Amino acid sequence: MKLHPEILAQASAQARGLAIDAVHKCSSGHLGLPLGAAEIGAVLYGHALVHNPDEPRWLNRDRFVLSAGHGSMFLYSWLHLSGYDLSLEEVKNFRVLHSKTPGHPEFHETPGVECTTGPLGQGIGNGVGLALSGKMAEARFNTAEHVLFDHHVIVLAGDGCMQEGVAMEAVAFAGHQGLDNLILIYDSNDVTLDAMADKTQGENTAARFKSIGWDVQTLADGHDLAAIAKAVAKAKKAKTGKPQLIIAKTIIGKGIPEVQGTSKGHGEGGAKFADAARAGLGLPAEHFYVSPEVREYFAGHKKRLKRAYAKWRKTYEAWRTANPDKAALLDSRNDRLSATDLLAKIPAFAADAKLATRAAGKDVLQPVAAALPLLISGSADLHGSTLNYIAADKDFEKTNRSGRNLRYGIREHGMAAINNGVAYDGIFRTSCATFLVFADYSRPSMRIAALSKLPVLYIYTHDSIGVGEDGPTHQPVETVTGLRVIPNLDVIRPADPEETAGAFAAALERQDGPTLLSLTRQAVPMLNGIPVQTRREGVLKGGYIAVKESTDLTHILISAGSELQWAIAAAQQLGTGVRVVSIPSFLRFDAQSKEYRESVLPTSCRKRVAIEAGVTGLWSKYVGLDGKVIGIDRFGLSAPGNTAMKELGITTEAVVAAAKSL
Amino acid sequence: MKLHPEILAQASAQARGLAIDAVHKCSSGHLGLPLGAAEIGAVLYGHALVHNPDEPRWLNRDRFVLSAGHGSMFLYSWLHLSGYDLSLEEVKNFRVLHSKTPGHPEFHETPGVECTTGPLGQGIGNGVGLALSGKMAEARFNTAEHVLFDHHVIVLAGDGCMQEGVAMEAVAFAGHQGLDNLILIYDSNDVTLDAMADKTQGENTAARFKSIGWDVQTLADGHDLAAIAKAVAKAKKAKTGKPQLIIAKTIIGKGIPEVQGTSKGHGEGGAKFADAARAGLGLPAEHFYVSPEVREYFAGHKKRLKRAYAKWRKTYEAWRTANPDKAALLDSRNDRLSATDLLAKIPAFAADAKLATRAAGKDVLQPVAAALPLLISGSADLHGSTLNYIAADKDFEKTNRSGRNLRYGIREHGMAAINNGVAYDGIFRTSCATFLVFADYSRPSMRIAALSKLPVLYIYTHDSIGVGEDGPTHQPVETVTGLRVIPNLDVIRPADPEETAGAFAAALERQDGPTLLSLTRQAVPMLNGIPVQTRREGVLKGGYIAVKESTDLTHILISAGSELQWAIAAAQQLGTGVRVVSIPSFLRFDAQSKEYRESVLPTSCRKRVAIEAGVTGLWSKYVGLDGKVIGIDRFGLSAPGNTAMKELGITTEAVVAAAKSL
Repeated sequence: MKLHPEILAQASAQARGLAIDAVHKCSSGHLGLPLGAAEIGAVLYGHALVHNPDEPRWLNRDRFVLSAGHGSMFLYSWLHLSGYDLSLEEVKNFRVLHSKTPGHPEFHETPGVECTTGPLGQGIGNGVGLALSGKMAEARFNTAEHVLFDHHVIVLAGDGCMQEGVAMEAVAFAGHQGLDNLILIYDSNDVTLDAMADKTQGENTAARFKSIGWDVQTLADGHDLAAIAKAVAKAKKAKTGKPQLIIAKTIIGKGIPEVQGTSKGHGEGGAKFADAARAGLGLPAEHFYVSPEVREYFAGHKKRLKRAYAKWRKTYEAWRTANPDKAALLDSRNDRLSATDLLAKIPAFAADAKLATRAAGKDVLQPVAAALPLLISGSADLHGSTLNYIAADKDFEKTNRSGRNLRYGIREHGMAAINNGVAYDGIFRTSCATFLVFADYSRPSMRIAALSKLPVLYIYTHDSIGVGEDGPTHQPVETVTGLRVIPNLDVIRPADPEETAGAFAAALERQDGPTLLSLTRQAVPMLNGIPVQTRREGVLKGGYIAVKESTDLTHILISAGSELQWAIAAAQQLGTGVRVVSIPSFLRFDAQSKEYRESVLPTSCRKRVAIEAGVTGLWSKYVGLDGKVIGIDRFGLSAPGNTAMKELGITTEAVVAAAKSL
Repeated sequence: MKLHPEILAQASAQARGLAIDAVHKCSSGHLGLPLGAAEIGAVLYGHALVHNPDEPRWLNRDRFVLSAGHGSMFLYSWLHLSGYDLSLEEVKNFRVLHSKTPGHPEFHETPGVECTTGPLGQGIGNGVGLALSGKMAEARFNTAEHVLFDHHVIVLAGDGCMQEGVAMEAVAFAGHQGLDNLILIYDSNDVTLDAMADKTQGENTAARFKSIGWDVQTLADGHDLAAIAKAVAKAKKAKTGKPQLIIAKTIIGKGIPEVQGTSKGHGEGGAKFADAARAGLGLPAEHFYVSPEVREYFAGHKKRLKRAYAKWRKTYEAWRTANPDKAALLDSRNDRLSATDLLAKIPAFAADAKLATRAAGKDVLQPVAAALPLLISGSADLHGSTLNYIAADKDFEKTNRSGRNLRYGIREHGMAAINNGVAYDGIFRTSCATFLVFADYSRPSMRIAALSKLPVLYIYTHDSIGVGEDGPTHQPVETVTGLRVIPNLDVIRPADPEETAGAFAAALERQDGPTLLSLTRQAVPMLNGIPVQTRREGVLKGGYIAVKESTDLTHILISAGSELQWAIAAAQQLGTGVRVVSIPSFLRFDAQSKEYRESVLPTSCRKRVAIEAGVTGLWSKYVGLDGKVIGIDRFGLSAPGNTAMKELGITTEAVVAAAKSL
């Protein structure tokens, strides 16, 4: 397609005007990127992106990610101009309560927003995940006759994103894996929020990316529409098998002479020069101005895009007819297998098994992976410990794009950000793994998964001082509680192999948020005193009566995970009036009806003892001021796991003594 | 000094033997690095390192950091052989409860261990911090006549460390700042835990480091003692103003032919071949064998080292005499200014002030920085928002090594790891800053600060949905609670400027762990109803009675931070029997005597309401089953801060209604 630089230059000026007016109106937001990257936006949305504003989730669209999410007005302007369902009214309501134009782009909130961004670096990781998803989709669904997937992922990032470790991990993965469907545009404006960028960086970015397996183009003038278009076209056509970096030298805040090119151009500071800026840009005094010519151009462009889309639809229909199995596989992305369905596929464990819950997880994963052919699983160089390898399949690699097992390297944060990207794409169901204590490394991405309601599964193992000799650096004590407090992250800490089966089923049934399975390194006994079905289905409710008192209720012992065995043993010593409650998931239990919760934890019984090999504080919500919590309010120690447990007081005896003291 | 390759080769074999025997004895640990890097250890500890085993904290020692902390037996073997206070008995007790040889190296536990390492990448960040500390020390204390500091920092890291984002952030900072006192030795063995490294990485590391401002040497044979010695000497002598990378190609697990050079060589797997390996290494059958010749060599080497140390001592004494001011400044690193001393230096705020607590922090920081001349402060590109710039000083940069303000770039994780390094060094008192929600990015390093009892100060601002328009990606809701559960991390969330003064004083008095100040973006009123001294000193106790009931106690309202104002307002509406308690620090309050806690929160009063603009769960420990918590158990939203607060129910009215409902 021919480039139309004149109208795109007009559109660039008007997009600048929209950003200035929106930021000026709410006295908040960031002008630097929307102004500095206006020509990049014009080329992408007015020329280079293959998409369909009327079908924002079209399978073969180019995905665009604004990693520098603070520049959200860039996205809103161009989505509006492109004809997405985002009215000028919404643009005017930038950063207003319940608008479709929140301060940072939020997935689910705005059509055309592919990812929730703002925390820097995340969008680059998401883009790598989208590109990974694209490669996997190409391998599974394209045929010699029909190309269903050949889209690109284009990420726009600034200096802030590029400095973040999560981004560096992700681009290393992309380079290693040769994700050549990924184009990263670096809005290189030599300015960060605080100061000129040379205060904090002095690298040769082009050389750095070449050293990690990327192709690099540099645009000396990132405002040259023709040059941008040429670079993007070249990147799209590259056949080198490498991801593509375009370094675009731009002027931050371009269009507001008083601040452009300086750190004052980054935020909302320039908005006070709105009137002069509007005039300087050749815009009329009218705020939120879009010319009829620009409207007309984008209407025409949308028609062209829709013709391309219609053509793809024909291919798609022909492909469906020709490949019913592949079509069924693709459709299965929308299947909603219930936990009951999934549990039916997981054989019961032998009653005399003695397995770590991570080993139980390995056994559970295999039939579940068979039932969910779009499920993928990866590990941060710990497959041998996290045991989440899908045995029936192989590694995803350059030479095997349909492998379901991902080797993320020792890059926990990048892994989680990449998993978010796969989940945003919505084609594959993704899971990943590391040691639980390193959840801290991936936490920023997990938070966004929870916020964006992404059904990512984290299979995190070695979940307590039961880790043993590796010592306190590797022993979670606060980690489980620290994760339980993240809204919408379901943390499930199963007590034995059957609860582990329930945990996987619960996680994979879930569609509206991430689930973390907290699994043991050490073997745990089968809790055969509780019926298999009760253990499995109890997990779905989050909490349940594991052992019911046989006489009047005197005490309630509460636990989760590998310590439930001690609560049960203590109950046996304490007498027939003692109930044991298992709460593998706080999120699920707290979401139950008041009646159900009351039936499990009757308000009238205040003699409550909780035990968990971790910090005690959060258990207070179940034991109250009158109960006791046996836990570990300090870091662990290096010793065999059972020694560490005893040394730190995680024992049956401690539960018995606490109960008796009440 | 002349290299003695024959005896060092013997020592290498015996260090391998010690590692094999220790890992074999406890059936746990990692052989890959101790065996693969044995010659590197021999050159460092037997030749190149300037240190004094009898004075492990000598100010001008070379600092050695084993970033690949899982290879802890490397460190223990060489520390033992070098003559540190680490007996062979301790080596034999590797990974045994309460030994000096825990699974991963732990600061405070073992003489000669500079940093707690194990979580990958951290040690590289720590090394950058140690190098930063070294540069600052050189600038402040060296004179034309006397060179007090000219040591080097040497970090040994493997593929795992090099893949981590935290390491990449830190080495970018080091390259930018030209920390040429830093030598990073990359134990490049082409193997990671799961597999051959080429499964996850394919970069040109030398080119990557050159692109970020490092000098690079590559050793094709990382077992060649002479080549290693030459490379280290060259790196030490380099006058390029750049940090130094030495890529040493090694064979992982070298010495156990059955596993060496493969991922099986990484862990303890090779230990079962101990007897054959010992024979192959030319060692006798005796376990934990050290030859008399090696003992003799290291004894002699220690004497040489001590002569160099004695020479330095003479310089040091002469320097002290010639530079009493500088000597006093250096000595001040050990000063223990009490919170009372510090508070005396902070003027009271105007009673009609209306400041954000971050702005109060800016005012508090200045006199405190004057009182503590070794205090430094940095920000992750957010000085303009976190407001922690020491106004009387300038930036630390290549041309101003005595600047007290650090620009870390948009590298929160690297910043925190670097701060740990500065704190390990013990010369400077370090603080750093970002938005509170990005505590997640720096959390892995904060955890180690807490574990290692490092007195780092985190000045983290924008601490609730009060952030406003930036929306949920930037609004902490779970963040404060998530931090409160980290053992030994003191999280202080002050309610107004005077509590902020107390918070800084508490933090800077503290010597045995890190403190995080959680400060508001938005202005808060002065809580003049509470005497200034009560607010300031109340913080030191963690919790205190802010408003005392004037008639019989009926209700207790509890809060922290910017929401305390609503609790106070509610109490005024609820009547004279209502007490208001401020709990800015859970850690401090929980550490008070039972009597004190009871005096603040009498057990008998169960009508308790807590309010905080964050997740509710942890507050249960103060309100119990009979009280209520007003909080936010979901993510925030993009809208002006006060709108967001109202929309999410953080109001006086909510407190009043909850109290009345009890």
